[in-house]
This record gives sequence, structure tokens and C-alpha cells, in this order.
Amino acid sequence: MTDTNIDCATRIIARCREIATHTEIPGEITRRFLTHPMHTVHSLLRLWMEAAGMTVHIDAIGNLRGLWLYPVANAPRLIIGSHLDTVPNAGAFDGIFGVILGIALIEELHEHQPPFSIEVIGFSEEEGVRFSKPFLGSLAVVGKLDPETLQRTDQDGISIAEAIRSYGLDPASLPAAVLSRDAFAYLEFHIEQGPILESEGASLGVVEALVGQTRMQLLFEGQANHAGTTPMRLRHDAMAAAAEAIVAVEAYATSHVGLVATVGKLEASPGAGNVIAGRVTTSLDIRHANNQTRHAAVDALTQIAKTAASRRGVTLTLRTEMEQSAVPLDPHLTTMLHTAAAQAGFPSRRMTSGAGHDAMILAPAVPSTMLFLRSPGGLSHHPDEAVLPQDVEAALSTAMEFLALLSDELSDDKTKDSHA
Amino acid sequence: MTDTNIDCATRIIARCREIATHTEIPGEITRRFLTHPMHTVHSLLRLWMEAAGMTVHIDAIGNLRGLWLYPVANAPRLIIGSHLDTVPNAGAFDGIFGVILGIALIEELHEHQPPFSIEVIGFSEEEGVRFSKPFLGSLAVVGKLDPETLQRTDQDGISIAEAIRSYGLDPASLPAAVLSRDAFAYLEFHIEQGPILESEGASLGVVEALVGQTRMQLLFEGQANHAGTTPMRLRHDAMAAAAEAIVAVEAYATSHVGLVATVGKLEASPGAGNVIAGRVTTSLDIRHANNQTRHAAVDALTQIAKTAASRRGVTLTLRTEMEQSAVPLDPHLTTMLHTAAAQAGFPSRRMTSGAGHDAMILAPAVPSTMLFLRSPGGLSHHPDEAVLPQDVEAALSTAMEFLALLSDELSDDKTKDSHA
Repeated sequence: MTDTNIDCATRIIARCREIATHTEIPGEITRRFLTHPMHTVHSLLRLWMEAAGMTVHIDAIGNLRGLWLYPVANAPRLIIGSHLDTVPNAGAFDGIFGVILGIALIEELHEHQPPFSIEVIGFSEEEGVRFSKPFLGSLAVVGKLDPETLQRTDQDGISIAEAIRSYGLDPASLPAAVLSRDAFAYLEFHIEQGPILESEGASLGVVEALVGQTRMQLLFEGQANHAGTTPMRLRHDAMAAAAEAIVAVEAYATSHVGLVATVGKLEASPGAGNVIAGRVTTSLDIRHANNQTRHAAVDALTQIAKTAASRRGVTLTLRTEMEQSAVPLDPHLTTMLHTAAAQAGFPSRRMTSGAGHDAMILAPAVPSTMLFLRSPGGLSHHPDEAVLPQDVEAALSTAMEFLALLSDELSDDKTKDSHA
Repeated sequence: MTDTNIDCATRIIARCREIATHTEIPGEITRRFLTHPMHTVHSLLRLWMEAAGMTVHIDAIGNLRGLWLYPVANAPRLIIGSHLDTVPNAGAFDGIFGVILGIALIEELHEHQPPFSIEVIGFSEEEGVRFSKPFLGSLAVVGKLDPETLQRTDQDGISIAEAIRSYGLDPASLPAAVLSRDAFAYLEFHIEQGPILESEGASLGVVEALVGQTRMQLLFEGQANHAGTTPMRLRHDAMAAAAEAIVAVEAYATSHVGLVATVGKLEASPGAGNVIAGRVTTSLDIRHANNQTRHAAVDALTQIAKTAASRRGVTLTLRTEMEQSAVPLDPHLTTMLHTAAAQAGFPSRRMTSGAGHDAMILAPAVPSTMLFLRSPGGLSHHPDEAVLPQDVEAALSTAMEFLALLSDELSDDKTKDSHA
């Protein structure tokens, strides 16, 4: 580890903390899509980008885009990105870290420019807080932002189109936001937002795939009745049926590698201590990197829930609210990132991401890869969210090695091309 | 069954339905403690009582009291009672049925007066809806209405004392509401409010005891975390811990005769489908006629909940919100009521009451007994609450036999006394 890397890691963390002071709500970090503090964030990042030699503009959806141009016509372009928006009362690293590390990389490379352009994108909306619709920034970049989406309104009745105009941008220019044809790879750095790396004492994880996800609502309908006068054998207890299903969800997921299944929400009606619950609604969230494994889990768990219900004379109604396939990242780039980490001296864990990221949207359009940094305490979406300086140094060294490998490969390709 | 009994049963049901039309909210039956419609209810009942030869007054807590005096100094006095108030959107029989049957009995006896006075009490407050405090009427009758209780206020800020005065009564006269020293027995008729009699095809149940009850709050505290990024083995899922406890509560109660245990309320926080629940609060309601059995159940179930929590790194905090001993009814009167039912031609089931009734308050002060009538569909606290005419006839015949047995016993006692 070089002193330069230590300085650079310190600077990255300090910049994340500086950006965090620009918030809608003083005392906490809340920065939703195109709200007022985003102006200052854009200005600060533009300042750092321009100082690093990049040309900067803000596209029509509010993505901040800095280009370090390799001065050759149709030079291949590496995209490095993550998002600038936050959830309410967030931490200082989710999203913004990947953007600031991208800028720092260019500062470090300085005069050793690799044989390709680098575009750093600060996506303007990934969390989906303001308009209950995530990934607006990355969807615009891959040309998949449905024009109807622009009519969605926030809680104040302001549409996305109006928010864009209020910010000083023009929704009509959205087509110009689409990714350059020269883009050949997408690289995203992000905190893990989970406890896996920490539990294994690892700094870095190379993401192989973003999990597929099924979200359902389970409605158990039994019969509300007096808790004192209704003997056990004559009950139709929706709560007991739901509880049996919840226990089974946990047991099933625990016994299937890589599967996570969660019931985080439960609403019981009438919801009084002295009345047997007649109606219970629960959520069910099932995720796995393999779609078949996930579908098998959905089938098994809904069958278990049906049995738990029918044994009690309770009916079960299922509703699928979200069904999203797993997104594999590019195997070649992923192996290259893994090799880069090893060459930098950091054994990295291959893993799947249980959460969605901009890489999920970019991957179908351009070969993509993603590097996770350990989340102390597994914490995220929380003011105590952090990154460790040594992990930032590890990410930085890995990124430098990765850019070197990428440079070598492009040179080899060119050599091959010229020999052909 | 006599034609007279059939006519009388029809009249009792019709009177209950007539009383039900006097309500705070047109279209539903809602008649809380000392609200406006109670004036008309008092007037109607007074009319029927006086026509039956009773002298009537309203005591200081609003109990309507009709006395059919046996014209001998210090004649023993049988109390027949139940309550006049209802829950919101109630049925037409809970409470009022026992008062109207009491009046009907006196009408049927007519000139065949037994050798004791009969006082019919329509208790003014049993449900506890208006002031979140049940049994105000019966507590006043046994002299246990705490003066501080009179300062409790309803949702409009009106105190019980003010409600009494607004109704035209005087709280200072409360001591005069206390039961006569001549009272020797209390008899209450009530719908079962549960499904047991119906499930066994029986008209009547003789209540041996009112169950004891423990109500607790269980607070499970784990760690809220991302449902996608937190592997199963690293979770501290408060919902899964609570669910395991709920399943165990049901299984334990099902395997212990006469025990009922219920979790009717569950609140999960943060309560989002994609977040592992960090905090879950549940109710726990445990009832049994035997206090030892109930205490053993409380111990066993809280231990099971603790184990379910600790296995997941979840903490459990218990709070007891209510702890009420079982109330046995008078064994001699209960046997007499059982015999009366048999003599009238109706095999009655001996049973416990899982709900509270005015008899629970009267029992420690005066030997008490209680007769349940089958609840069609087990329904109560519901507009569809009903009684079957043949069950009313059965109750009426049983009551007549019971009064005859009581008369015989009093005559025997007197004979013995005069021989002594």
C-alpha cells in the first residue's frame, strides 16, 4: 500500500462526508432526486471533475457526467458510476462513494492516461424515494425511461417532468442522455450494505450477479372471535396460520444456500389482544441469484402457507407484487476484477448482490461489473453507515490494477486487429 | 313445553328487539353507559316491571332496580340481573336478555309468589366502552366502586360523576346502591357468546366458574436489516421469533384441556416488506378456570417465547397487563340450576365462562349462579347475534324449576329453624 493510496482514501472519505452536509433536512442526510441540495452537490463534483481534467455536463434527467476523453476518434469508453441521491436519514457513502472513487481514480492516473476514455456518471436517482420509482437516472442512460413515467407525481403533486424543468433542465433532451456507442464496460463501486464481507473479515467482494426477486402479499382470512369463549378446536385463527407460514419461510430459506426469504410486514385485524385475528396480511420477499431456485422457493413456500391456512379453516389469497429476474454481470469483466484484486494483494469474495443497483440497469446494455466494499456492522440506510479507510485503499488499488488489465487487453485487441 | 312458555319466549325476544331500537347510532345497536337512549330503555323496562307488580327505582350509578317484595319483614331476596349497556354495533341480546327474562319470570309467576322477594337489576355498565372501565353497575351494588373511579373521563372529557349528574342522578347517593342484606342468591341468564353449546347441540349451559385471565405484552427486539443483503444466518429477525412463539401458544393451549391462549395483536417495525423486522410487539391472552393451570401455562409459554427469541439473538421483554383470578360460582346453587334444567327436560352442560360477566363481581358478595343459552353461530358483539326461541323456552322452564327448588329449600330451612 502506497502513501499516495492512503492519502487518496482519506480524501475520498472526507469528500463523501462533505457531500453529506448538503441535505434537505439539517442534522440528517436526506437528498432526494433533484431537490435543492443536489445543486450544490453537482457544483462540488463538477469542480473536482474539472480539476481532474474532465469535461462536465448534466443530462436531462439530472445525471452529472464527467468525461476524461482519450483523444482518438471513437475511443472506447469505460463508464464508472453510482448514484447521488439518498434515502431519508441516510448514511454518507451509499451511492456517492462510487462516484467520488471514480473521480479519485482519474486524479491518481493523472498523466498516465489509459488508452480509453473514462466517463464518470453520478446517477441522479437510484433509491426511488421521491417518485416511488427507482433507477430514473440509469434508465435514461440505457434509453429505457418510459415517457409516461415523467407524469408520475411526488407527494406535493409535482411531476417528474416539472421537477426536471424546475431544476433548469429540459425533458425534451432526454434522448441525448443515452449512453455513447463507444461504451465498452461499466464499473460500479458500492458499499455492500450487508454483513457478509465483515463476517468473513474480507475488504472486497466481486459481484457476479444481482439476485432476482419475488415480492408477494399473503392474505389469511379466518374468523374473528372472542379469545375467551372460543375453544381452541373451534377457532379459525388467521394469526396462527400466518405464524406457521413465517416460521416455515425462515426454515426453508436457511436450508437453501444463497436464498433469502423475509416476512417483514404483518397486519392483523381486528388487532385486539382479546379477539382472535380474523384477517392477517403479510409480505413475503424471496431472493436468489438463480431464477429457478427462486421460483421453486416461491412454489414451496406458498404451498406451505396454504397448508398452514387450510388446516385451520383459514383461506389464503396470494398476490404477486413484484417479479424480477436475476441480472448476471459480465463473467469476463468479473473475473478480471477478481484478478485485479488478487494482484493488488486483496483476496476478494465472489458474491451476489441482494439489493438492486444501477449496475442492474446498465448490465443488459453494456458489459458490467461491480465491486463491493465491506459495510462495518452491515449497516446501511442509517446515519452510522461507514467505510473503513483500509478497504477504500484496497478498492483503489484494485481499481488501478483493473484499469491496467483493461488497458493491456485493449492493446492486445488492437495488436490483433492490426495483424488481422 | 307449555303454550304459555312459547308465548312468553316470543315476548322476551320481541322485547329484546324493541329495546334494541333505542340506540345512539341509528341503524346499529350502540348504547353506552348513561347515554341518551338509556332514558327510554329505563322507561320501557320500568313500565313492564310495574305492570308485573314490582316497585322500581334507578340507583345512583344508573342501575334500574325492580323489586317484587315478599310481604314479610327481612324476607330473603333473590337477585336476578344482567346489563343494559352494549358494545358499539352490538347484537340485541347480550345483557338485556337476562333482565327481560327476569321480568318475564315474575309475570309468569303472577299470583304464585315464592316465599322470597325478587329484585331484578338492569346493570347500567358492564362492557366498559364509554369509560374504558367495565362493571361500574355491579361494582356499585357490591360497594366496591372506588370513588376515584368517578373522576375517569370519556373521550369527550366528561367524567363519570358528571355523566351521573347529567342523567339526573346524584353520585352522593352511591352508598344507597349497595345490595340489601337480605340478598341470599344471585342468578344471571346470558347468551354464551361462544360456540361450545351450539357445537354440542345443547340449549343450556350451567356456568361453574368464570375463567381467570392473564394478559401480557411481549416485545421482541432484534435488528432491522436489509431483506436482500442479510443472509439468513446473520439475521436477528424479531418477526420469526414472534411467529415461533405464536405457533407454540396455539399448540400448547390445544393440548391442555379447557385452556385458551390467543395472540390477537401483532405490530412489526419498521413494517416494510423488504426490511427484516427489528421490533415486534404481540399480545398474549391466557385463560383457564383453574389458576394453577393458568399460571403454569404463562410460565411455559413465556419460556418458549424466550427460547424462540434467544436462538435468534433477539431479546424478549415481558409485561403483564392484567392478572385476574378465576371466580368460582356457588357450587350448591350451580348444582341446583343443573338439577332444575334436568327436571325441566333439558340436559345442560356444565361449563366455564371464558368472558367476564356481572356474576363475576357479584359472586364474592352473594352466592351466585349463571345460566348460558346457546349462541347461534357462536356470534356475539355483532348485529347477527341471536337466541333460538326453543332455547328461551328451555331457560324459562329451567328458571321456573329453579325457583321452585329454591322455594322448597327455604321452606325446609324454615321448618328446621322452627323445630330447632
